[in-house]
Amino acid sequence: MTGQIRDAARTRRALLDAAARSVGVHGAGVTLDVVAREAGVSKGGLMHHFGSKDELLTALVDDLFEEFARAVQEQVDPDDDAPGKLLRGYVRATFDELERGSDAVEQTTLMATLSSLPGLARRSQDRYRRWNETLAGDGVDRQRVLLVLRACDGVSIAPLFEGAIEPDELADTRELLLRLTRDTGPLVELL
Amino acid sequence: MTGQIRDAARTRRALLDAAARSVGVHGAGVTLDVVAREAGVSKGGLMHHFGSKDELLTALVDDLFEEFARAVQEQVDPDDDAPGKLLRGYVRATFDELERGSDAVEQTTLMATLSSLPGLARRSQDRYRRWNETLAGDGVDRQRVLLVLRACDGVSIAPLFEGAIEPDELADTRELLLRLTRDTGPLVELL
Repeated sequence: MTGQIRDAARTRRALLDAAARSVGVHGAGVTLDVVAREAGVSKGGLMHHFGSKDELLTALVDDLFEEFARAVQEQVDPDDDAPGKLLRGYVRATFDELERGSDAVEQTTLMATLSSLPGLARRSQDRYRRWNETLAGDGVDRQRVLLVLRACDGVSIAPLFEGAIEPDELADTRELLLRLTRDTGPLVELL
Repeated sequence: MTGQIRDAARTRRALLDAAARSVGVHGAGVTLDVVAREAGVSKGGLMHHFGSKDELLTALVDDLFEEFARAVQEQVDPDDDAPGKLLRGYVRATFDELERGSDAVEQTTLMATLSSLPGLARRSQDRYRRWNETLAGDGVDRQRVLLVLRACDGVSIAPLFEGAIEPDELADTRELLLRLTRDTGPLVELL
């Protein structure tokens, strides 16, 4: 990368991070001025990267999904060739975030705020659906995929209602979900 | 109930319903004036029932938990004497709400807003813990309880991110979770 391209990428990154923090604090009503100030970038500098608030928030949704997808890929064991390896990466990425004590509440509130915006709901839904389809192709029975994904969502949202989950319970749940991806057949027989 | 007591109970109910709607729309910053107007009650009438905003929101948290506890009890099959009957009531109450198309997003946002208030976080956490303890005594292995509860939370929150869940998937997930409560032993062997 030339210095100029690198600077542009860095500014874009700073703007997306600032947008995430600002939406978390101010909600969907946040203004571009607030985001620019938070990023330490002029309003003109912001507008150079994102022509409108819509454009900025759309890029933020994409960025959050891409970051999570990267985290999942990093958690896929390269020596693991068994069915369910992507699902295991998903479980590990989810629990790593929780165990690092990263602010799951803030993250979830941010995603919920973004997903509730009429223009972004569809985009976020499509992204989720693509995830579900990808994981459905991971070689594990659909029941197991459903259960593991729903439980991951439930664990991520739990601190919002219950406060921090006890480390023991978190570790047991993580291990339980990982084990559930080790068998490929249905868990129970449904009609 | 005498007419006067009945009227008071009705006003209290109207105030709690109005508070739920108002917090949903205006967030935690909602004023008592707004709630009173929404309920069609004078500010003095509101203050007669709830001496402060804290008192009103605390009563609202308690009310939401009690309403859900009632829904669970109503869903416990009186002819079901097997272990896990309460957990099955919990699954049915959760999915009935979703299937009725009741606004899960609104409900969850409301609970999240209330749970995030410093004064209420503890109360909400205690309530959740009591639920978990009650369900832990339902005769089903802890792994199954954990998994079913986390998956119920995940399903409840899903529409917030993914839009409405397909009816087929909802029905399958419900049935899967109910089946998981039918066996009492551990699902997998953990170390």
